[in-house]
Amino acid sequence: MPLVLLAGAALTMSSAAQAGDAAAGRQKAAQVCAVCHGANGLAVAPETPNLAGEPEGYIARQLRAFRSGKRQHEVMAVIAKGLSDEEIDNLAAWFNSIKLTATVP
Amino acid sequence: MPLVLLAGAALTMSSAAQAGDAAAGRQKAAQVCAVCHGANGLAVAPETPNLAGEPEGYIARQLRAFRSGKRQHEVMAVIAKGLSDEEIDNLAAWFNSIKLTATVP
Repeated sequence: MPLVLLAGAALTMSSAAQAGDAAAGRQKAAQVCAVCHGANGLAVAPETPNLAGEPEGYIARQLRAFRSGKRQHEVMAVIAKGLSDEEIDNLAAWFNSIKLTATVP
Repeated sequence: MPLVLLAGAALTMSSAAQAGDAAAGRQKAAQVCAVCHGANGLAVAPETPNLAGEPEGYIARQLRAFRSGKRQHEVMAVIAKGLSDEEIDNLAAWFNSIKLTATVP
């Protein structure tokens, strides 16, 4: 059943790619993200998205898209090009670890 | 001072484009966003970003980027193509009106 085995392998790789170290991500975020996205992932710069509590896979995917140029943003392109795969996964784990509460007006 | 006048006109247009109606946006969001992004903008589908509390200009810009194809996502392209400028501004006003609290682990 080669197809089943392949699917299993792909799943494992995908999971491994998202097993980030939140503590390491927190340190990196303080250096490269906090100035715009805030120390706790609530943005401080205008028109900048909050990252707190966003799904790990979503953050990692967007950072890779900025790095490759698939998603375009002048500042994020520069920042993402300086990040390794491990650093991206760590940042994703860190921002995802922040718990959000939403209050509807 | 034509340059100053132009700048003033651009600023006015930009402000007007973001003066969304949050109540109308809330109704629209219940129809087209909530199934993935949650009734209160906290996502319920996996790997889907939370939208609660995101800046108005950010949400509006991303929706227009999905609509034009500048930002690519299979589902969001279809959804954004069905939105008018007014609906985009209303959705942006609604999600921005939700207040967020972040708790660091």
